[in-house]
Amino acid sequence: MSHATLFKFSLLLFVIACTTPLHAQTAGKIVHDSEYYILEAQNGKVWELENGELDMKLAELRQKFGTPPNIIHYMWDDQPPMSFGDPIYQKMRGYDTPNLNQLAKDGMILARMCTEPGCTPSRAAMMTGQLAIRTGHYEIGFPVEYTGLAAENVTLAEVLSKVGYATGFYGKLHLGDIEESYPHNQGYDEAFWGVYNQIVSLYNNQGEAANAIIGMKEELLAKNPYQRDRNFIQDESFVFYLEGTKGEDAKEWRDGSQEIQDYRDFDGECRERALAFIRSNAEAKKPFMVSWWPFMFSFIPEPQKTTLQRGMVGEDYNRVVERDIEQLRQTLEELGIAENTLIIAMADNGPMTHHPPPGAGLGEGLFRGGKGDFLEGGVRVCAAALWPGMIQPGQVAGDMIHETDLFTTFARLAGATEHVPTDRIIDGIDQTALLLKGDTHGRRDYNFIYQGPDLAATVKDQYKIHWTSDDPGQAKSGLTAVYDLYNDHREINAMVVGAFHMKEPFKRMRARHELWKQKYPDREHRHGPAYTGISNARPATLSLSKPPADLKSLPFDPLEFIEYLDDLPFDAASEPGPGQ
Amino acid sequence: MSHATLFKFSLLLFVIACTTPLHAQTAGKIVHDSEYYILEAQNGKVWELENGELDMKLAELRQKFGTPPNIIHYMWDDQPPMSFGDPIYQKMRGYDTPNLNQLAKDGMILARMCTEPGCTPSRAAMMTGQLAIRTGHYEIGFPVEYTGLAAENVTLAEVLSKVGYATGFYGKLHLGDIEESYPHNQGYDEAFWGVYNQIVSLYNNQGEAANAIIGMKEELLAKNPYQRDRNFIQDESFVFYLEGTKGEDAKEWRDGSQEIQDYRDFDGECRERALAFIRSNAEAKKPFMVSWWPFMFSFIPEPQKTTLQRGMVGEDYNRVVERDIEQLRQTLEELGIAENTLIIAMADNGPMTHHPPPGAGLGEGLFRGGKGDFLEGGVRVCAAALWPGMIQPGQVAGDMIHETDLFTTFARLAGATEHVPTDRIIDGIDQTALLLKGDTHGRRDYNFIYQGPDLAATVKDQYKIHWTSDDPGQAKSGLTAVYDLYNDHREINAMVVGAFHMKEPFKRMRARHELWKQKYPDREHRHGPAYTGISNARPATLSLSKPPADLKSLPFDPLEFIEYLDDLPFDAASEPGPGQ
Repeated sequence: MSHATLFKFSLLLFVIACTTPLHAQTAGKIVHDSEYYILEAQNGKVWELENGELDMKLAELRQKFGTPPNIIHYMWDDQPPMSFGDPIYQKMRGYDTPNLNQLAKDGMILARMCTEPGCTPSRAAMMTGQLAIRTGHYEIGFPVEYTGLAAENVTLAEVLSKVGYATGFYGKLHLGDIEESYPHNQGYDEAFWGVYNQIVSLYNNQGEAANAIIGMKEELLAKNPYQRDRNFIQDESFVFYLEGTKGEDAKEWRDGSQEIQDYRDFDGECRERALAFIRSNAEAKKPFMVSWWPFMFSFIPEPQKTTLQRGMVGEDYNRVVERDIEQLRQTLEELGIAENTLIIAMADNGPMTHHPPPGAGLGEGLFRGGKGDFLEGGVRVCAAALWPGMIQPGQVAGDMIHETDLFTTFARLAGATEHVPTDRIIDGIDQTALLLKGDTHGRRDYNFIYQGPDLAATVKDQYKIHWTSDDPGQAKSGLTAVYDLYNDHREINAMVVGAFHMKEPFKRMRARHELWKQKYPDREHRHGPAYTGISNARPATLSLSKPPADLKSLPFDPLEFIEYLDDLPFDAASEPGPGQ
Repeated sequence: MSHATLFKFSLLLFVIACTTPLHAQTAGKIVHDSEYYILEAQNGKVWELENGELDMKLAELRQKFGTPPNIIHYMWDDQPPMSFGDPIYQKMRGYDTPNLNQLAKDGMILARMCTEPGCTPSRAAMMTGQLAIRTGHYEIGFPVEYTGLAAENVTLAEVLSKVGYATGFYGKLHLGDIEESYPHNQGYDEAFWGVYNQIVSLYNNQGEAANAIIGMKEELLAKNPYQRDRNFIQDESFVFYLEGTKGEDAKEWRDGSQEIQDYRDFDGECRERALAFIRSNAEAKKPFMVSWWPFMFSFIPEPQKTTLQRGMVGEDYNRVVERDIEQLRQTLEELGIAENTLIIAMADNGPMTHHPPPGAGLGEGLFRGGKGDFLEGGVRVCAAALWPGMIQPGQVAGDMIHETDLFTTFARLAGATEHVPTDRIIDGIDQTALLLKGDTHGRRDYNFIYQGPDLAATVKDQYKIHWTSDDPGQAKSGLTAVYDLYNDHREINAMVVGAFHMKEPFKRMRARHELWKQKYPDREHRHGPAYTGISNARPATLSLSKPPADLKSLPFDPLEFIEYLDDLPFDAASEPGPGQ
């Protein structure tokens, strides 16, 4: 037997030894990642007792209000832990957020909330309860992607719809541009969304003026006498904002206008629609779930600064998030449903540390690294939970919690756990106990952190191993790159002697995680023509899903590439080609 | 005229233009650094009005208690902002400090407290109200220094003694080993102190065992057959702990024992003595000032860990600081003087980021860099002020405040401003308004940060210029190395276009600062024999101020070097030699 064969054979024995009994236990139940079962085996009995207690508490609330609790998931971009709810941090960064801070005070700060390290991966994880790697959404999308969340994914909106929840989506989606990815085709009753990220704030004449170097608006540039291809970038075809109702075609908001004023109005429009949706469902006594994900900040500085920070983030907290939170809480109070509504307020990933827009104040926070990094700076965010009467106010929870846990937790709170799919790994763990019983009642002590398609780091409790690194002497071999996140939270000084006894446990943990994937494989991205299913699509938009007129004479199908998109940038292991 | 002469001449004209009127104004008053007068010229009228209001408030308090307020300055090592009073930060670092957090809650967090970047410089600045460069204390001391705080310095204890305060020093002094530097020779009525820093926790057999590599205890090492000089290190002669009463000789505590148990007992002994001093003065109705600076942490891990952090800092908060604070507050309450006592609790400089002892949790905090660095990480510390009834509880102040400001502020609170010397620059600014009126009422917007003997950076408001840097492309020329501390608090991305208009103002500010020094020059270190004036000095200790027996045949005086110590390591500009 060759070494490679022997190794594979050993792994096979290992997976049989490790996973068979676990799988037997989980038939018909949610399938979690392998590490969860290690915890369940040791804590399951306590958790079962706690679950009974939690069920009673939820039943009492339901008796009082007549419906299961409403859920509002409010999420914005790129803010590290302490960005709100921490007045000391805010003084040192030069801004404050009184409304968010009040929310944190009235609720519980989730000090160790972890997300995926980028917008698209994070939003995919939140929608599906799965790590982004499992649905192929490990890359941040830009116009035009020809891809998006596939129909086969089961979103939180789909799960909650099954038990009678009204579901609404308002804000930045950033989960693709193919028809099946539109939120009203993914379980939301109504949706109003930005297709891409905040770069759409730049695609206008004002963006060009504020960022003279970029050169995006052709009509403001000197004529290029060397230009031979007028179709390389087709910015007039981009779709920025869509709206849609379940079962109907989408519509371009404001008929596809791309003015800066549209961008400025967008978050306010989200606010109006979200609050109207909340109001009408509350009045109809129908439980609801709202995903409200504002753009918040802009790549174009707003002319009037209001905060000491004088950067875009401080400013736009005031312009967007602070108003949203204030009016949301007022509305819930007025409707008398504040005590039957859970609000989670959080960021989607770490700060945009690398090449941030000028003045945006997006440098590293406490942790090293930011958006895009597998360092804690990439995956640790600010977060708080508010649920008057159910969550004890003024708490700071140190338990690890992952955004995917919200998927599973929301399903449980809604009484919809049985509708969570059981044919795939759901990374989200039910963290109801953490919310209702507080600090130290979390059920997670691990995190598998992917950077793009690669597993880059694994966290267990206070320790973290880097599987990859810029410094080949530290990692790659996986031998010494173990960091103590309490003592060395910036992941700078790898432990040596202190990590000797952790090498093999970390390797075992990774082997279990990867072997479990053999049974429940990661899915590929879905590809297809962009922007179909839009009733008022403009001719420029339509042209993206049809060969442009002057490309008709090509010796190949100019849209054939769409099918092979994923194989191009990263995936060296697969073999792209028509026969695949 | 040569270029150099022309430059000097221009500077001279400049100093005449800038400083003459200022100096005329300040005759008989405290002399501040030049930048203060720039602020005073613009804010002096408002400050004067405020001062009247503050005086009234202080007079009312004095009427109530019959004495001016007691002052307790409690300071420990190496902790960045947020280390206490910030439960979110603490959750992420794995420790908590309930007593300190309560103190912060009942008082005001000073979110922008600045210190010198190292222990000795910071303690010198605190004692004298002057930047350490002005007294020659810009280096961290180690055994044996043959230097220390000179008699000509006027300490806080001397100033307050003039108006009848009882003054006590308890803890780590780290300000030299010559007789005139002993705190009971520097104005303190009684003193109990550690001469050096926490490395004395290592100078024992247990230290050797815990740090096998270091090899400090000769008797535990293999015999070295190549050793020719038995006097290179004379660790048995080191003095670790002294005690003294004004006007008397000092005494070695426990007759010079160097066991680990002495180190462990030291902070508890400080607590007992400090509380007894407070009690006896309160009962005698005498106002008092206590400098209480515990060792807090040890280079030897304590066997029993009590905090999640499992490192030495978390642990020793519990073992030392938390107990101190709890018992201090209880004592003040019992004595009925809590409302007539100001407590400042703070660290002396940024975290020991570079080569920290294992497990001490001393990595970088929010800011980049730590102890020894001119980066904000070196000079920003955790701090809070408690004064029930006088300082409004629950505040977070974003104003810049420097440790030297405490000197001047304490003098004002005690009614001793007239005893602050007026023949030298006092960097400390009276910040009574910040304490009593709160956030935004500070009187400082600048900081000159020295690293060793060099001016390395200058801060003005939210901006900071690096005069020196590891990256010659960024600084040295002083052209582009301007950082925005709100938006880029880690000092990574120097502003370019955004700093064009700041270049010349920063250069002017530095020129004023340096020209003002021509009138009030920095003082040199005082050197002399170590460990004189100790009544129970051991023979080994005495030998350090007398030539060792077997060196008597040397062709030079073996103690002659003491006089020239300062010229050796840094000061290239001076010309060392017997004739100097």
